[in-house]
Amino acid sequence: MSTPEALTAYLHANIPLTAALAARVVAFDGSRMEIAAPLAANRNHRGTAFGGSLATLGILGGWSLLSTALRAEGLDDVHIVVQHSDCDFREPVTADFTAISTVPDAEWPRFVTALRRRRRARIEIETQISADERVAVVHRGRYAAFIETLT
Amino acid sequence: MSTPEALTAYLHANIPLTAALAARVVAFDGSRMEIAAPLAANRNHRGTAFGGSLATLGILGGWSLLSTALRAEGLDDVHIVVQHSDCDFREPVTADFTAISTVPDAEWPRFVTALRRRRRARIEIETQISADERVAVVHRGRYAAFIETLT
Repeated sequence: MSTPEALTAYLHANIPLTAALAARVVAFDGSRMEIAAPLAANRNHRGTAFGGSLATLGILGGWSLLSTALRAEGLDDVHIVVQHSDCDFREPVTADFTAISTVPDAEWPRFVTALRRRRRARIEIETQISADERVAVVHRGRYAAFIETLT
Repeated sequence: MSTPEALTAYLHANIPLTAALAARVVAFDGSRMEIAAPLAANRNHRGTAFGGSLATLGILGGWSLLSTALRAEGLDDVHIVVQHSDCDFREPVTADFTAISTVPDAEWPRFVTALRRRRRARIEIETQISADERVAVVHRGRYAAFIETLT
């Protein structure tokens, strides 16, 4: 999953709801993940974006970023679980939208060290969802990461 | 939308993501809403339920309950918006699941009175999602309701 296209294909094949969202990974590196989604597939009865779609994109963005950022650290077989999702809907979303998730720089080294040392650690990832160049939704996900050991 | 089947059909037709979830309204009255979803349509790469599906069902359950409970009060044309979603994932969900949303009895009269008087009010609705008879996820949604007036 070294390209946005490969990661998108992986998500659609393995998490069917991401295909229903028509979520598409646009770009990522070790500290940032950008995922886009069209309004049409995610509309509600009012023609704006459905809250469930927005929260889902927040959860997905954080998980995808964590996954690729840990791989960039050489940690390939980490099981990542969302433990808590907090989603603040600030404005209605009336156009196609984009979720940008970012690694918290100050927390990251501590998290990676703890994960290597204790084989488990937690981190919070923030995702901002924008439409028409305005941030409409802020999602904060708390994720637990586990290095799996074959016994 | 006087029957669970009619409400399910309305949701699938107007909020496409609810059809992708294969969410199905099982039962409702003025104070409780039960919505079921199968694991298969909502699985993740580990074969457990995707966090996005679970958060979506929480948001949907609260919204649907609020909508039908206000109709039971004779308030038909209320615009309901989710403002905040808080979702606590306590255990992995490894089977088909059911979301039960309940009206907070103590808050309800105050909310309806405020809504009639000021044409807008807020309320928090809790939804518990269970699988195999265990509560695995607790969702708290804060919703704003507006009585719309034609001007």
